[in-house]
Parts: sequence; structure tokens; C-alpha cells
Amino acid sequence: MATLPSVSYSITVRLELDGHGSAVGSLTNAVEHVGGVITALDVTSAGHERIRIDVTCAARDTDHAKAIVDALGAIEGVTVHKVSDRTFLMHLGGKIEIKSKVPLRNRDELSMAYTPGVARVSSAIAANPDDARRLTIKRNSVAVVTDGSAVLGLGNIGPEASMPVMEGKAALFKRFADIDAWPIALDTQDVDEIVRTVQVIAPGFGGINLEDISAPRCFEVEARLRELLDIPVFHDDQHGTAIVVLAALKNALRVVGKELGEVRVAMSGAGAAGTAILKLLMHAGAKDVIVCDVHGAVHRGRDNLDSNLEWIAANTNPAGYAGDLKGAVRGADVFIGVSAPDILDGDDVAEMNDDAIIFALANPDPEIDPDIAQLHAAVVATGRSDYPNQINNVLVFPGVFRGLLDAQSRTVNSDMMVAAADALAAVVTDDELGPHYIIPSVFHSGLSQHVAEAVRQVAVREGQAQV
Amino acid sequence: MATLPSVSYSITVRLELDGHGSAVGSLTNAVEHVGGVITALDVTSAGHERIRIDVTCAARDTDHAKAIVDALGAIEGVTVHKVSDRTFLMHLGGKIEIKSKVPLRNRDELSMAYTPGVARVSSAIAANPDDARRLTIKRNSVAVVTDGSAVLGLGNIGPEASMPVMEGKAALFKRFADIDAWPIALDTQDVDEIVRTVQVIAPGFGGINLEDISAPRCFEVEARLRELLDIPVFHDDQHGTAIVVLAALKNALRVVGKELGEVRVAMSGAGAAGTAILKLLMHAGAKDVIVCDVHGAVHRGRDNLDSNLEWIAANTNPAGYAGDLKGAVRGADVFIGVSAPDILDGDDVAEMNDDAIIFALANPDPEIDPDIAQLHAAVVATGRSDYPNQINNVLVFPGVFRGLLDAQSRTVNSDMMVAAADALAAVVTDDELGPHYIIPSVFHSGLSQHVAEAVRQVAVREGQAQV
Repeated sequence: MATLPSVSYSITVRLELDGHGSAVGSLTNAVEHVGGVITALDVTSAGHERIRIDVTCAARDTDHAKAIVDALGAIEGVTVHKVSDRTFLMHLGGKIEIKSKVPLRNRDELSMAYTPGVARVSSAIAANPDDARRLTIKRNSVAVVTDGSAVLGLGNIGPEASMPVMEGKAALFKRFADIDAWPIALDTQDVDEIVRTVQVIAPGFGGINLEDISAPRCFEVEARLRELLDIPVFHDDQHGTAIVVLAALKNALRVVGKELGEVRVAMSGAGAAGTAILKLLMHAGAKDVIVCDVHGAVHRGRDNLDSNLEWIAANTNPAGYAGDLKGAVRGADVFIGVSAPDILDGDDVAEMNDDAIIFALANPDPEIDPDIAQLHAAVVATGRSDYPNQINNVLVFPGVFRGLLDAQSRTVNSDMMVAAADALAAVVTDDELGPHYIIPSVFHSGLSQHVAEAVRQVAVREGQAQV
Repeated sequence: MATLPSVSYSITVRLELDGHGSAVGSLTNAVEHVGGVITALDVTSAGHERIRIDVTCAARDTDHAKAIVDALGAIEGVTVHKVSDRTFLMHLGGKIEIKSKVPLRNRDELSMAYTPGVARVSSAIAANPDDARRLTIKRNSVAVVTDGSAVLGLGNIGPEASMPVMEGKAALFKRFADIDAWPIALDTQDVDEIVRTVQVIAPGFGGINLEDISAPRCFEVEARLRELLDIPVFHDDQHGTAIVVLAALKNALRVVGKELGEVRVAMSGAGAAGTAILKLLMHAGAKDVIVCDVHGAVHRGRDNLDSNLEWIAANTNPAGYAGDLKGAVRGADVFIGVSAPDILDGDDVAEMNDDAIIFALANPDPEIDPDIAQLHAAVVATGRSDYPNQINNVLVFPGVFRGLLDAQSRTVNSDMMVAAADALAAVVTDDELGPHYIIPSVFHSGLSQHVAEAVRQVAVREGQAQV
């Protein structure tokens, strides 16, 4: 699988050229020659002597960007003035801001929004605490909480460095579900302190989105907060991923005409995402699952299992298979990987059951090259945006929280998550469904609203809604 | 001092009248007869038979609003349909929201604002933590932190009920200084827990605004957080008030031609605001101050002083005056009250030095009726918006934080606060200055920028700025 130039690594190079412009024609060739892609070319000033051009190109990585700039500078008559990184420009000063919903143009408005008028509103909530949902941002606000311990594929980079991701998440919450989310990056990685801090800051929020907290601490943090709080606590890395995988798997099974309760599933990865996927698949009816980690299949006879692996051993792998991943994949209908790059090859897929389904979700490099998997499997999905069937949390977390907030739900549970997955899967109609379209685009109109409504209905049905 | 109808208690009454409209003329009379003020009258539908009118009136309080509605309902041919409270309508659903600063219209924008592009931005901050100020909202964000223990005049109403005030504060931060503030209402009133929680959530913020935390806990919370954090921690109830008082006092002294270092000041109130005012006045040069609390003057010989009162005893009242407030006020040039209603009368003010200055800041009922104080004093200020010279924190906290954030200041100190007071005082020109105009309106154009620049310069001069 070749890495292609990506707009996520996009540079703008300001050039000055001889006025007769003979060099303009060389620009595209020069960039293409080193494998870059010009996405925009703006003449920002033109004179008799010199013209100035901003060339925007997609690159693969830092070295590639440098090669592109060098190639441009090597053209006769071209001077490179300034190189800007479009992604960094987009992040300058942060990606979210506050907006006041009330006008504060004059004294009268001030005295209603703030003192003295606000005192009556506070008194009303003091007398009837449920009114906080009606008269404050609690009704629409979510804390995006991280300790910076497992940020994207970057690992333990700490709270400050996690902020761009958390802000991005907040921007997505607003964009896709009109939710007001604020990033809370914690200067601690101690489970007790994380739990207590979130509990202490919870009153102003209608939900807690845990994010990029490493396993196994994330399991305990989430479980304890769910016990302590009367608002939903959702670890997106676990459950967001699990919901999208379940939705995509249901549609992939529609494509090949198999049933979730009858297929054999081989999984690679028993971390936060893997465990959540496993549990949700089983809640939705999957029965025959083998989970492998770096030591091979998780089974009852294995030594040194932590509490999470112990649960997996007790609840999966009924035949007690004790071999490696490749053996587990042999004859399986479905492979789901949330682990490491390049651990399977084409031969492994060829030995799976007919109409195999491959979800190779390690990012940026999948468990198997999707181009090779494609040769032997009926349906292939990845976590990458440059292949069909991208498993992307953005498909569900905005809608899930929209539904939870609309219901003023006290919690979020597996029934709600299965409903969210069903709603997401149902967005793909029978006419649209196919090996390369098992999951809609994140820009699919009305997607979050569809997921939200499904979640809201379960919250109401199960008595968790407060409206 | 009569309480006047206020727009902060404003109701809109939907009425239906006989179509010939003979009752319309009676509406204004009926409302005025019970002491209300009609601020708007909108005919929302008109027909042959009936017309519908929305009457908006300012009332004094709940009973008064009811009297107005009753008076309207008693008019022949008038039916009252619905009464809405404008202040509550303004607060519905909360007063602030998130806005994304980046477009998220398509896949390319998504991949720059979020994964995979965001990974490079996070990596850059991990490599160089100072970049968090450049590439995240830290550079412009403030946490408005409360434990709900001393909210306005309402007392210990808890975190949920404090949210409307904190949201209002956040809206004011945006309105007056383009700062992105988010309310954090804490579910604890334990000093250790407040300190630790704020410390843990601090990485994403460029400043901490403590709010409505009761004394004496607020002193310790602030002092400890200043030790622990490398961002400014500012308890607005203390220092915001102190800065405005100092600015107003400097201008009042300009009016009467006295010097801060030479006047005798009698203060009533040794709580959070009183102590902060005292310390800032002394930092600015005040030398002769007596502070009284409910037990009379604070002096070295008094028993059972807590650590705060001990400091006051050691640093004020050089003559060791041990009497009551009225005695302390006798012969004084300045009275500053941040305590309780109606503790002084006209005779007390008459016995002050010539050209007395009265700051009676207890809210909503001042230490002395301002109409009576006016008869004997040269300058009178209150905390109320319906008298001249309102001492209002909104005059300074936005500008102070703007300056701190612009400087990327590590702290906030008394020099910066005095500079803020000087900047605020200087906004009133010699031509404008007078007994009824010692302090500008919060809507004075450029006010926050003026204060901000003064604070920024001190931060730079004293080596606290990181830019």
C-alpha cells in the first residue's frame, strides 16, 4: 500500500518568478516529478518584472514536503520566499471559541444576563435543581476529558499536547450534533485522581466524553465514574469504535448473506478498543469469537491474565484454542484487527472461510495491506480515509451524545450502543449496499440525528431519560 | 432609598382585548397605578372581534409583578393569557455556546482539523510545550471556577445553581475582552480538593478566575494555587472589587483634592472583598486605615483573631483604636463599606472630615442610604446600577485577564492591579471628572483594552510575561 500525498499534510509555498512567467509552466511538472500534488495555484501579485505565486501542494510527510520545496526552488528564475504548513495555520490560536447567546449591548441586557437579574435564575435552580437542565448550558454541554496518555497513535504525550485533538473533537461535536463540548486536559494519570476530578467538575456538564486514556486504566476510570455520576460517561476510543465496527459488520454480513450469531470471528487486539468491540459484538449476538493479543489466543488455560483478559478468556474461545493469530484466522468468517501493522498476509486471508470479511483497523498501517486483502476477501474495511469503508468514530459519537442529551439520560449502556449501530447501519439502503459501501460518509446528511433518535428512544424505553 | 422597577425584573403579559380596543388606553394607567413601568407594547394580532397585545413591564419583585398582572386582568374587556419573565427567557438553554473557528465542510478540512493532520500539531507541542500557547485555545481561555459557596448575595447555593452566574461571567469575558471562558462549577467545598482539582484541570487554560468562593477558604485556595500554577489565578470577588474601588477612590480624591497617602480611611467589612481592598489600597500608598467588622475595630489587642484579622491588626490601625464603626468613621476622610445594610446614618457622615467620600457597597442595600449620604458627603459611590458611580467588577476583570493573556503572564500581582486601577481611573478625563462621574460606564469604548495594556506592560516589565 503506497502512502499517497494527503491534504492533511499540505504546504503553501510563496514563490517569486521572472515577470515573463516562462517558469509558471514548470511548476506543476516540478512538483509532480517528486510525487507531490498541486491543489491550488494563486497569483498574489503580478508586475512587469516579477510575479508572485502561492503554490499549495499535498505532500506525504516532512521529508516529502522538503523535496517539493527544493524542486520548486531549483527551477530557473524561481525564488522560494516562505513555506507555510496549512494544517498548522488552521490550528493557530486554537480551533474553538466561546460565543455569547445573549446580547449584551446595554445596561438593561447586562442586568438581565448578569446581576441583578441572574440572581432570580440561580435562586430558581437552588429551589429546584432539575431546572439546571432548563436554564443553564448543562443541557447541551459535554466535557471532553483526557489525561493525554494514549493520544491517537502518538502515545503518552501529556495534557498540553493532547489539546489539539480534544479541541478538534469539540469542533466535531458542534459541527455534527450542535453540542457544546469543552476540552479538559488533566495534569494527572492517576486513576483515583482522574475519577475524583471528573466527579468534582461534573455539575455543569450533561455528559462526559473520555478520550485517549490508556488501557487498562480507562476501564476502571469509566466504570467508577458511571457508578458515581448521574450523567452518561462514554469512552469514545472504546465505545465509539465498537459502535461503528458493529454497524459496519452488520452491513458487511448483509453483503455476504451471513448472520452475526453464526459467524466465527477472529480478533487481534485486547486493548481498550478491542475489548469494547468484543463486548458489543457479543451483546449484539456474536457467539463464536477468538481474541488474540501479542501472546496469541486468549484462553482459559493461559497464565498471567489481567482482569480484562480473564473476562475475555471466560467469555470467548469456547473450544479453548491456544494457538497464534494465523491459526485463529484460518477458517474464520470475520477478522477484526485493532492492534499492529502487517501481521497478516494474503495467504492468511485465502485460508479464511468463503466470503471473508476483513476489518484491519490499525492506523495508519493496517494489520494487512488492504490491496492484498481485497484479492481474497469479500469485504475490506480500514481506519484510513484513502480506502473505502473507513471505520471512523466521527460517524457516531456526535449522534450518541445528541441522543443522550436530548433524553437527559442518566447513563449510556450497551442497548443504546446497539441501537446506535443499527441506526448507523440502516442509513445504508439495500440499493446502496455493496462491498465498497458498508458505512456512510461522515458528511451523510442527517446521520447524527438518525443515531441520536435511536439512542434517545432506548433511553426513554429503559427509564434512563429524565424528560 | 426607594426600590424602583427594574428591567432585570421584566415581564411580558399576553393580553386579549375587545376588538374595538377601548381598553388599550387603560393599560398604561393600570400598570402605572400599581407602580409598574411599561417598556414595550406590541400588538401581535388584530381582528374585528379581538386584538392581542404583548405588554412588557418592569417590576420591582415577584409580588409587584403579580400586582401588575392582576391590575391588567382587572380591566374590563381584557383577558390575561400568558405571563413570561424576560430574564428567565434570556437564560433558557444557557447563555454561552461553542463555536468552531475552523470550517469542517469536507473531508480535506476534517483531515486537517482532526485526524490525521492534528497528529502533527500535537507532536509539535509534545516536542515544544510552549507551542501550546500558539496552537491551542490555552492562549485565550480562562476557567471560571466556583464551588457555589458564596454566590452573589444568595450564599451557599451549590454548583448547579451557581452556573447562571458563571455563564454570565463567561459571556461578559467574551463581550468585553474577546476571552474564551468556560464555567467550572465544583461539587466540593473542601479547600484541598478545590486546589487539587483546579491544578489538575489547569493545562488547557491560560488563566483561572476564581468566583464566589466564601471567605476565609478563598484566601487559602488562591494563595496555594498561585504557588502551584504558572498561570495567573485571580479571585474576582476580591481583586476585581479592589481594583475598581482603588480606581474610583483615586478619582474621588481628585475631585476633593486630597492624597491617598494622607487621608484617614474607615472600612466596614473584613471578608474577601474587604481584605483585598485594604491590601490594594495600602499597596497603592494608603497609610491610615481602620477596619471594622461586626465586633468593632480590628486592633492588636483584640482576642480570637483568625489569621486574616491578625494580619489586619498588625498592619492597620496604628493608634490602636478599639471602639465601634461609628467612632472609626468620625473624622475620617473616606468610608468604604463591603459589609451590611444600614449601619450608618446621616449624622455619622456629618461627623466625618470635610469633603467626605462614601463608598457604600453592600448590595442590594448599602451601608447607608445613598440619598442621605449625599446630603453630607462630597462623593458617594455604591454597588447599585440605579445610582451614579457604580462600583462594578465588570469594569476590570475582562481587561485584567486580556492583559495577562496577551503577556502570557505567569501570575497576577498587586503592581498589575494598581496599574489596572490607574488605567481605569485615567479613562475619566479632567473635563469629565465630577462627584457623579468618578468611574466610567462598563460600555465605555476601549475600556478593557486600556486596562489590558496597562497590565500587560507591568507583566513585561516585571519579567512575568512569556512573550
